[in-house]
Amino acid sequence: MKIMSINAGSSSLKFSLFDMNTNEVLVSGLFERIGIDGSCYTIKNSEFKIKQEVQLKDHSDAVKILLDKLIELKIINSLEEIDGIGHRVVHGGANYTESVVVTDKVIDDIVKLSDLAPLHNPAHVIGIKAFKEVLPNTPMVVVFDTAFHQTMPKENYLYAVPYSWYEKYGVRKYGFHGTSHRYITKKISEVLGRDDLRIISCHLGQGGSIAAIKNGKCVDTTMGFTPLAGIVMGTRSGDVDPSIIPFVMEKEGLSAGEVVNALNKKSGLLGVSEISSDSRDIENAIKEGNEKASLAQKMFVNSVVKYISQYYVELGGVDVITFTAGIGENSVQTRLEIIEKLAPLGIKMDIEANNVRGEVKCISSKDSSSLVYLVPTDEELMIAMDTLALIK
Amino acid sequence: MKIMSINAGSSSLKFSLFDMNTNEVLVSGLFERIGIDGSCYTIKNSEFKIKQEVQLKDHSDAVKILLDKLIELKIINSLEEIDGIGHRVVHGGANYTESVVVTDKVIDDIVKLSDLAPLHNPAHVIGIKAFKEVLPNTPMVVVFDTAFHQTMPKENYLYAVPYSWYEKYGVRKYGFHGTSHRYITKKISEVLGRDDLRIISCHLGQGGSIAAIKNGKCVDTTMGFTPLAGIVMGTRSGDVDPSIIPFVMEKEGLSAGEVVNALNKKSGLLGVSEISSDSRDIENAIKEGNEKASLAQKMFVNSVVKYISQYYVELGGVDVITFTAGIGENSVQTRLEIIEKLAPLGIKMDIEANNVRGEVKCISSKDSSSLVYLVPTDEELMIAMDTLALIK
Repeated sequence: MKIMSINAGSSSLKFSLFDMNTNEVLVSGLFERIGIDGSCYTIKNSEFKIKQEVQLKDHSDAVKILLDKLIELKIINSLEEIDGIGHRVVHGGANYTESVVVTDKVIDDIVKLSDLAPLHNPAHVIGIKAFKEVLPNTPMVVVFDTAFHQTMPKENYLYAVPYSWYEKYGVRKYGFHGTSHRYITKKISEVLGRDDLRIISCHLGQGGSIAAIKNGKCVDTTMGFTPLAGIVMGTRSGDVDPSIIPFVMEKEGLSAGEVVNALNKKSGLLGVSEISSDSRDIENAIKEGNEKASLAQKMFVNSVVKYISQYYVELGGVDVITFTAGIGENSVQTRLEIIEKLAPLGIKMDIEANNVRGEVKCISSKDSSSLVYLVPTDEELMIAMDTLALIK
Repeated sequence: MKIMSINAGSSSLKFSLFDMNTNEVLVSGLFERIGIDGSCYTIKNSEFKIKQEVQLKDHSDAVKILLDKLIELKIINSLEEIDGIGHRVVHGGANYTESVVVTDKVIDDIVKLSDLAPLHNPAHVIGIKAFKEVLPNTPMVVVFDTAFHQTMPKENYLYAVPYSWYEKYGVRKYGFHGTSHRYITKKISEVLGRDDLRIISCHLGQGGSIAAIKNGKCVDTTMGFTPLAGIVMGTRSGDVDPSIIPFVMEKEGLSAGEVVNALNKKSGLLGVSEISSDSRDIENAIKEGNEKASLAQKMFVNSVVKYISQYYVELGGVDVITFTAGIGENSVQTRLEIIEKLAPLGIKMDIEANNVRGEVKCISSKDSSSLVYLVPTDEELMIAMDTLALIK
């Protein structure tokens, strides 16, 4: 069984082809600048890496080249070998609580939800349609970033704003990174051999979110109506007083959309450090004595600690805290700083064990009140697994 | 010694005259609708209450009538008996870290800070000038709502937004209700006979904020750049994803300022319950089975619990949690719901002891990991005490 996992952006198409017997990636890659000058693609696996400039007028072009290339490279012998295609979709709204097989109604619903994810949902639909055109008979599935969070109780997903905004426009907390948080939940449950866990899942990458999970179900998460809210991120502010928006609009002569754009793209680690949105650059700058980098790191760590603290109480204690994604998997220092601040909850790190990157490993000390694990995420595999389960 | 404590609004003037030997209120009251048709005043103490309609063309009119009335009612025999006047000022910015004697420079600074508190600071200056006109030789002091919070470390008061917004426009967390949090800190330190306390001070009224206090100094607080941020309040949303602003602007055809106005005046308990901003009405509606009232109450309680949880970790544990202001002093049920949710931290309530309103009392159980106290606040007395200390 071979399943393709797809993440289509407005001018990009990311893919991974999985052998579902071994969960191994046969090949993965990216088509970039689709419909723009200078378009190109990359295909790679453990044995080769090809980067090629090529004209790509639309996503269908990219899909055709991808499939031709898979045969040419003898990754597959015929297109029939691709048993299913799973598409990542950012926004499934309140009604899609799990992955579903693609139908016309599903596509319509994704289009309708574009209102809530104007940059992402329309691009996903372009990706789905491009595959439907070239492989009309291959079963397809969509996997929503929001789905896992739809088990949150109403008092957690509502904002204390006029109730009519929720009823009329769907203003509420949706949560994102759900596919990652769900993968981590599945993985750590396998590792620990039980499902009845209170998990605080910290997905710390360029974007970052934390989820509070009880018995496999999400009860709370940091991202909100959009991925702007919650913890400090690479370029996103996380939580701020919303009154800042009209104030800065007037001072800088910007529209509300422009200020929110700055909160999404010029804030976070980048905004405070004025150096970089990449935590590796921040760590290097701290070593050189850069004060703003140090400030940015403290603010990032504090924002994570705040949510872990509140989820600890919300879950009635915690069995395991997990770290994943770019920073979570790779920054030994950041994990250490976060766990050290959790000492009042009896959570303690094994400093030796923490000296690790990118593998499943327990990094808490023996006398810690809860386990702490590093668990590398794999959203592409999760998408492929959902696809396999639904097309069987 | 007699000190007058003043809170001037744009069309109102609230006053309390204290005997500083006993801290007793000799008389208090309110001038309303100054400069508007239908203006009136109320003066009262434990023995009488006078309400009178009167024409008040400006704040100086109000001050003159107030002083005449104090003599007429024989509260004082001459104006010289008023030893000092303390004025509440909402915004002291980053530089005013404590109360100060009024000088021309102080007045100028309060005017300059109007940018950050456009509804309040100009009104306070009108109040100060009205008293200066009528009582030019009486010493005056200003007490800032923001001052107590200016000990927060930089990583706590900065937002992860472009650093230039902080440098150019002062976009940062200021915190409010500082006079109340400071009074509570002073009072509970007296009650417990020590200053080296980790205090989580919950000021829960129509407006609400929580402060984390260590050794008498504020290290963090829930209100932010403005009083909109933090916990759910009577009509204020508290924390929301700022992306909601441009989204609702487009949907409802509103300006950013109008959306923020709705977040300030039509949200919170009122917005969710669609009944009332008053927690007493919410509690009554819950008894009648109203689901939205129940939802509003849960959201309020959860928002308080979240901040107590994070401040518990931030302070490295807590010695005493205090409740004050309208809801904090009077809602037995709300205090109970909050403390019950803190069980994972070992904090427990004495349900019998909690059945109390408006007096200093320990309401935690003997086996609670930290003390919980009800401490009625008295911002007016705090203002009078600051005034006395500075004019001596």
